[in-house]
Amino acid sequence: MKELELLGEHACFGGRQRFYRHASREIGLSMRFGLFLPPEPRALLVYLAGLTCSEETFAIKAGAQRLASELGMALLTPDTSPRGVGIAGESDSWDFGVGAGFYLDASQPPWASYWRMESYLMHELLPAVQQQFNLGPERSGVFGHSMGGHGALTLALRHPGAFRSVSAFAPVCAPLQCPWGQKAFAGYLGRDHADWAGHDASALMLTQTRPPFPAGILIDQGLADPFLATQLMPEAFEAACLVAGQDLTLRRHAAYDHGYYFIASFVEDHLRHHAAQLLG
Amino acid sequence: MKELELLGEHACFGGRQRFYRHASREIGLSMRFGLFLPPEPRALLVYLAGLTCSEETFAIKAGAQRLASELGMALLTPDTSPRGVGIAGESDSWDFGVGAGFYLDASQPPWASYWRMESYLMHELLPAVQQQFNLGPERSGVFGHSMGGHGALTLALRHPGAFRSVSAFAPVCAPLQCPWGQKAFAGYLGRDHADWAGHDASALMLTQTRPPFPAGILIDQGLADPFLATQLMPEAFEAACLVAGQDLTLRRHAAYDHGYYFIASFVEDHLRHHAAQLLG
Repeated sequence: MKELELLGEHACFGGRQRFYRHASREIGLSMRFGLFLPPEPRALLVYLAGLTCSEETFAIKAGAQRLASELGMALLTPDTSPRGVGIAGESDSWDFGVGAGFYLDASQPPWASYWRMESYLMHELLPAVQQQFNLGPERSGVFGHSMGGHGALTLALRHPGAFRSVSAFAPVCAPLQCPWGQKAFAGYLGRDHADWAGHDASALMLTQTRPPFPAGILIDQGLADPFLATQLMPEAFEAACLVAGQDLTLRRHAAYDHGYYFIASFVEDHLRHHAAQLLG
Repeated sequence: MKELELLGEHACFGGRQRFYRHASREIGLSMRFGLFLPPEPRALLVYLAGLTCSEETFAIKAGAQRLASELGMALLTPDTSPRGVGIAGESDSWDFGVGAGFYLDASQPPWASYWRMESYLMHELLPAVQQQFNLGPERSGVFGHSMGGHGALTLALRHPGAFRSVSAFAPVCAPLQCPWGQKAFAGYLGRDHADWAGHDASALMLTQTRPPFPAGILIDQGLADPFLATQLMPEAFEAACLVAGQDLTLRRHAAYDHGYYFIASFVEDHLRHHAAQLLG
């Protein structure tokens, strides 16, 4: 990895919570990421964060390091978009541009040159970290929250074999049908809707000829989540999984909202879901 | 409690993480606090935060709700000072004024009218919460971090019987001797050093005629903490406990620093320390 700079390191549950900056080939600018290293890394779990979040959010708020340390799971937390490119208006919206990369490669100007989060993650950051710790795809899982739940599901489906396990918290399940997704896809991919379905988890699941994750997918969703009906639509992904024969555990939790108090409450179950497949 | 307003509520580990604002009699302005309520509150643990922190910091970063829910411990997290008073320069320093109340009652103008954190906590907020949940001093403990560790130790020593259990993370143990303490005491208490010793945990411990906490005090301290030698001085409190015959478990942890990754790593031990005394 080029010009890898350690920005911070904190002892944490017997391991190390690190934050790095590096010169990204795919983005063309420096990018930041977080990495929790347990005492003995035996698997790698990539966490994709939601709108407005950064590489620090999950590390600070989710409380995942305790069990990750015990299980031997390294936690890789990328940032949610390029920052500091200087495109006019790039920070004007909280749901588009900075902090809102949607884990895809933009095709539309002025975003196409820099907003390349899919290539960055799949062809640069993930392989570099896997190589560093000698943990290949059979030891790699992905999960995420909201926009990052969309990212986890779509990247896992778009890159068969790249991740062995997948889960999500309150994912954007059908971006074709929701305002966040429509705004992002129109801006990053253009008005031709034919290009959109390849980045919609529910649409992708409907194209599967056999269940892509035989060990099952885990999704947790709070029923007091204000975005549930208008932006998240887990029922669309549930229906697609039914059609595809994909085993899905979709847990709907009364009273829980969209934030990290919800994520923290169930993150242990997600780590165990991944550990069972990556280390079982 | 006057004009109690629920600002936010989040389901969390089967309980509720709440944030409130209320009109404080002792401060003369509105104050905020956080309260984590487990499904069955059986004890109350007050957490006092450090410089620059707020009522949200511990709730967001420490990951304490998981075990607090299991043990039945309510977590009360006050703010660290009045806010919005409008004293000239009140926010100019990160270690004095806003976010830096030091858990004492100021005697010096212009602070004396508002910076009354000790009276606010001990005569207003704590009794109100204890009464609400029918949890008296025998079910109440206090802990804190850095400036809040100073607060936990000094309030527990200055108010015998108010708390049954006490612990701290990286507390300011000897404010008489460190720059943070000297700046705060000079500003809030004036230049007469005779008024200072009553707010110094190590000096207070030296005045005890018998061990005030027979079940022991727990302190965790990271050895990579940049403030250890110049601001925290646990060795001063350790020596005072030795003189007073006070049982102290002072754990020095290689590699850990001053932040919440350190606190999160050991918060479980603190909750169990308090639970053993409050619920044992």
